[in-house]
Amino acid sequence: MTRPTLNFGQAEYDSRLSKTRVAMQALGLDLLIVSDPSNMHWLTGYDGWSFYVHQCVVVPLDGPPIWFGRSQDARGALRTCYMQPSNILGYPDEYVQSTRCHPMEYLATQLADRGKARGQIGVEMDNYWFSAAACAALETGLPNATLVDATALVNWQRAVKSEAELALMRQAGQIVGRMHQRIFDTVGVGMRKCDLVAEIYDAALRYDDELGVGGDYPAIVPLLPSGADASAPHLTWDDRPMKAGEGTFFEIAGVVKRYHCPLSRTVFLGRPTQAFLDAEKAVQEGMEAGLEKARVGNSCEDVALAFFAVLEKYGITKDNRAGYPIGLSYPPDWGERTMSLRPGDTTVLRENMTFHFMTGLWMEDWGFEITESIRIGLDGPECLADVPREMVVIE
Amino acid sequence: MTRPTLNFGQAEYDSRLSKTRVAMQALGLDLLIVSDPSNMHWLTGYDGWSFYVHQCVVVPLDGPPIWFGRSQDARGALRTCYMQPSNILGYPDEYVQSTRCHPMEYLATQLADRGKARGQIGVEMDNYWFSAAACAALETGLPNATLVDATALVNWQRAVKSEAELALMRQAGQIVGRMHQRIFDTVGVGMRKCDLVAEIYDAALRYDDELGVGGDYPAIVPLLPSGADASAPHLTWDDRPMKAGEGTFFEIAGVVKRYHCPLSRTVFLGRPTQAFLDAEKAVQEGMEAGLEKARVGNSCEDVALAFFAVLEKYGITKDNRAGYPIGLSYPPDWGERTMSLRPGDTTVLRENMTFHFMTGLWMEDWGFEITESIRIGLDGPECLADVPREMVVIE
Repeated sequence: MTRPTLNFGQAEYDSRLSKTRVAMQALGLDLLIVSDPSNMHWLTGYDGWSFYVHQCVVVPLDGPPIWFGRSQDARGALRTCYMQPSNILGYPDEYVQSTRCHPMEYLATQLADRGKARGQIGVEMDNYWFSAAACAALETGLPNATLVDATALVNWQRAVKSEAELALMRQAGQIVGRMHQRIFDTVGVGMRKCDLVAEIYDAALRYDDELGVGGDYPAIVPLLPSGADASAPHLTWDDRPMKAGEGTFFEIAGVVKRYHCPLSRTVFLGRPTQAFLDAEKAVQEGMEAGLEKARVGNSCEDVALAFFAVLEKYGITKDNRAGYPIGLSYPPDWGERTMSLRPGDTTVLRENMTFHFMTGLWMEDWGFEITESIRIGLDGPECLADVPREMVVIE
Repeated sequence: MTRPTLNFGQAEYDSRLSKTRVAMQALGLDLLIVSDPSNMHWLTGYDGWSFYVHQCVVVPLDGPPIWFGRSQDARGALRTCYMQPSNILGYPDEYVQSTRCHPMEYLATQLADRGKARGQIGVEMDNYWFSAAACAALETGLPNATLVDATALVNWQRAVKSEAELALMRQAGQIVGRMHQRIFDTVGVGMRKCDLVAEIYDAALRYDDELGVGGDYPAIVPLLPSGADASAPHLTWDDRPMKAGEGTFFEIAGVVKRYHCPLSRTVFLGRPTQAFLDAEKAVQEGMEAGLEKARVGNSCEDVALAFFAVLEKYGITKDNRAGYPIGLSYPPDWGERTMSLRPGDTTVLRENMTFHFMTGLWMEDWGFEITESIRIGLDGPECLADVPREMVVIE
């Protein structure tokens, strides 16, 4: 049998599993059911666009994890997970999107067969991939077990990055720099948004001889709203031509082997309005103030408060968070959904945590984003990309 | 205020709402909470990559639907939904990915304020976007209501396409043809997968002067595994060069304004093995047999059984379904998750239902896909794309 393709050494997977088990024991769990594809990949190497059907990794306190998913995807698990075939379990296709039976019923019987259908079983209650119906089916199918909320238990273990992970994120940082350069080189009045997105994907994906890698797909597609559309942070694109007198922010990420480096910049076609010039100044100064706080021992809110204080000085109110942790991700989110850079989050920053410092502004009828992805260092942050921190004006 | 950009006329949205209400009444619902972004878009026009936080559309039996989501995304709702601002409700950012409060708690209080926190309330229990935690928060927050499983209630209303929807799907069919042509024109031994994906995105996205549209993002990224990797249906890509003596299937979709036309073809670099030649023959003949059954009045299983019967004649067993309905979609799935083309599904085919006839084979150490996306017609199916139904051999 072909050995699976793994992006990390076995020692790294072993260490991830150990960290997860410590957290499981702290929560009093006997077993953990991991539905989030990012967590599944981090723990086992599993890769593939199969998360549109129910699947999970089951982590016992001893012994290897078990991959559970659709039978046809078990072949993908054999090719991407480090576990032996006896720990790859497929369920029959009749369970797929059926109203008569649920994959979690099948999982419950498999757990019972292995003597694992008892005790405290952790599940990711608030996760896209653990639906209310999946929870109900497990509750019915596991009468001798108690389901315990273990949302983000594995996500938290992912917060501090290994050197091997950081190496991928730095490559992703190089790629996102290349993507922004392509935008600056090609954007202009009359260019259709869809054509610009084609340029962005091209720069994101092509093999880079210098880096020795090609690009992977992002967990969020490019966001590039213009003018008043940029007042909304999550519009994607259409096929209309770009107009003079409008600002456009580009929220995009370079991705290498599922590891992300998001980065946003703003382009103005024509002479920027005073609002844009003011926003640039405030965000640049606020960014500096926040980065100054982004060091080991400070907290998440320290970074946010420093940034918000500068904005307030400029009379700008940002009523949403200023960032979130990043790393390995599958759609729909390149954030890790643990910490937030916002008032009230007193999580202490540790070395090699990584964040997207999301300093974006979405105002009444315009938007502006100049952001950085950073690694928390002992003496301050490392910016993972190297793109001039300024608005690009094309007159 | 700027009027929102809508892809369909108000009459079409009104008709969608009416159909949904008939289904709600049949299920005895007083209110429906719609979490699936495809259903939200279909009902209201809402568009944006914001489904990584909790959001929904609330459908009462009378009066306009209510959009509910993160405050910053409410600006996106104002720009894409047809409802008045008073029916666009944002929740504060502190509810985002918090362990202290849940957006569904906030929704419950909003429903109570509007006198809608009682009776039978439908929720999409088995949906990526309605987590177990969301369900629990609603149950707690709505003590005077009963939550009723309404999974796929709206999805079913989407099954029969309007002429306006079919027009978009036919454009998407043209685009997927352009994408396959690009693959055939550029693929070869030594080409890196990531570079080929860049070509695919380019062909998917660029504005087409003849069609008068540019491309949108697909709900599933390109799948293009080679050799033994093609035994797994859902691997994506890496940055390694393509090799001689391997087959690669390309499962991709053209997308226009969120409407999809998926289509798969297979390329063999070098002289195809007998297994590939046999698979091509069996799939072509099986496809014809299935298409013959794809007409109004027949059932989903009729199509699948006709296809499987031909495969069996050739000694090939396919132990997974042979297709699913398609149309409007957001990640992670371009299927509609209602019917399946498989034995046991006796749903009767109606005019203008649309399916991806998924005739793919994933065998022990190879894979093969030649598929069609079809519209069910009175006298037989219409293929939405026009790509020669044969394996492409590049020697």
